[in-house]
Amino acid sequence: MKPRLTLVGAGPGDATLITLKGIQALEQADVVLYDELASSELLQYAPRNAFKMYVGKKMGTEGFSQIEINQHIVRLAKKRGHVVRLKGGDPFVFGRGHEELSYAEQHQIPTTVVPGISSCISVPEAAGIPVTRRGYSRSFWVITGTTQDGELCDDLYLAAQSKATVVVLMGLHKIKEICAIYQKFGRGHLPVAVIQNGTKESQKLAIGQVWEINRLVQEKGIGAPAVMIFGEVVTLQPSYMIEYLNQQSLLA
Amino acid sequence: MKPRLTLVGAGPGDATLITLKGIQALEQADVVLYDELASSELLQYAPRNAFKMYVGKKMGTEGFSQIEINQHIVRLAKKRGHVVRLKGGDPFVFGRGHEELSYAEQHQIPTTVVPGISSCISVPEAAGIPVTRRGYSRSFWVITGTTQDGELCDDLYLAAQSKATVVVLMGLHKIKEICAIYQKFGRGHLPVAVIQNGTKESQKLAIGQVWEINRLVQEKGIGAPAVMIFGEVVTLQPSYMIEYLNQQSLLA
Repeated sequence: MKPRLTLVGAGPGDATLITLKGIQALEQADVVLYDELASSELLQYAPRNAFKMYVGKKMGTEGFSQIEINQHIVRLAKKRGHVVRLKGGDPFVFGRGHEELSYAEQHQIPTTVVPGISSCISVPEAAGIPVTRRGYSRSFWVITGTTQDGELCDDLYLAAQSKATVVVLMGLHKIKEICAIYQKFGRGHLPVAVIQNGTKESQKLAIGQVWEINRLVQEKGIGAPAVMIFGEVVTLQPSYMIEYLNQQSLLA
Repeated sequence: MKPRLTLVGAGPGDATLITLKGIQALEQADVVLYDELASSELLQYAPRNAFKMYVGKKMGTEGFSQIEINQHIVRLAKKRGHVVRLKGGDPFVFGRGHEELSYAEQHQIPTTVVPGISSCISVPEAAGIPVTRRGYSRSFWVITGTTQDGELCDDLYLAAQSKATVVVLMGLHKIKEICAIYQKFGRGHLPVAVIQNGTKESQKLAIGQVWEINRLVQEKGIGAPAVMIFGEVVTLQPSYMIEYLNQQSLLA
């Protein structure tokens, strides 16, 4: 029995968006620690007798603290062997995956990381929005809406002035403040999309411009977690033009 | 026989980093169009009698133009049915995937896109560098080094002043110019890593600071395509500290 940790990216929601390498790691798991962002369908790849434990931390509810998760990883690796830590999206895009890795390494547990499909690219993609496209955007900037101190990330002020496609993760509760920054820089008419349950059949999409997006999100009943995309690439989503034409006809 | 197009992200190099959904698409292919960034091992998932064609465009060599690729997709879909277009990384992160999709749709070919593991996150990740980490970086900005007009992307000037982790794809031939921008903004000591063949056994890594990285890249014989990562997160790569300590002992 050799203690080891494999951090596996579970992808954005659609269970077929896990990698082959991720499945191979699950097949060799003695323990699986997972959270609510990882599809429960993925647990089927682990051996039936593997120990499976939910360690999610839903916003606003009691749950495991990060230090508790770190300790569980080390304890279970020493007790049972191969721990697979299944994390939604990609392990190194927010979500504190690297902290779990560092903690295990400090306790002499060998580690590996298996990248996952991150929601920052794939959720817009599955909804018909490319984060880059010639003539529209030559870069994209991925920013968290949830910081340690609860404040908005400074980077958003610079992002609102850039030509980058800006993707905000975990920021729906700050949508008004973020849109106010764009408006402050004269970009109230920038196209924006907000997507809940991206890549799944239950996907919900609100699409419009910065000045109106908060109302559209309310009307569509979109809740967290959601992915927000700011930029001209949003106009490539087929329903953007339809919404726009509808508005023009209402105004006429 | 129904014409259709599935754009599939092949991942960053390691053949096991394709998604299950990507494999399922390949298994149902009548035609596979692939380029040099996609691992040739992936072609084994397509049926033996599927028509497989290389449409790569190696930098500086003759190859298919984008319009020729678009036309092949439409022609082969109408003639043979299901075309799988296998593209390195993720289809919507540079690489003109969305243009191929649009062109097919204009010719009444139904389309689907299967996200892939993008090198912008996974190549640093596999080399031990998280694009985000608490206390180091709350955002990451992905920028192309190769633009239509051959000029440096404007976004790089703003990026060099931001706190974001900056990931430059397809930019190795511009490394001197990019580093000059960072130095202009007083950031010559910012940590930076350059990685060739990321996620593969043949991976090569140069790691240091902006002022010295071009020399280190030459010394290690690193060539294109490569991924460049600028930011404090680079110090988390285990060999960064070793290089740093070596330098100190040389100076002492």
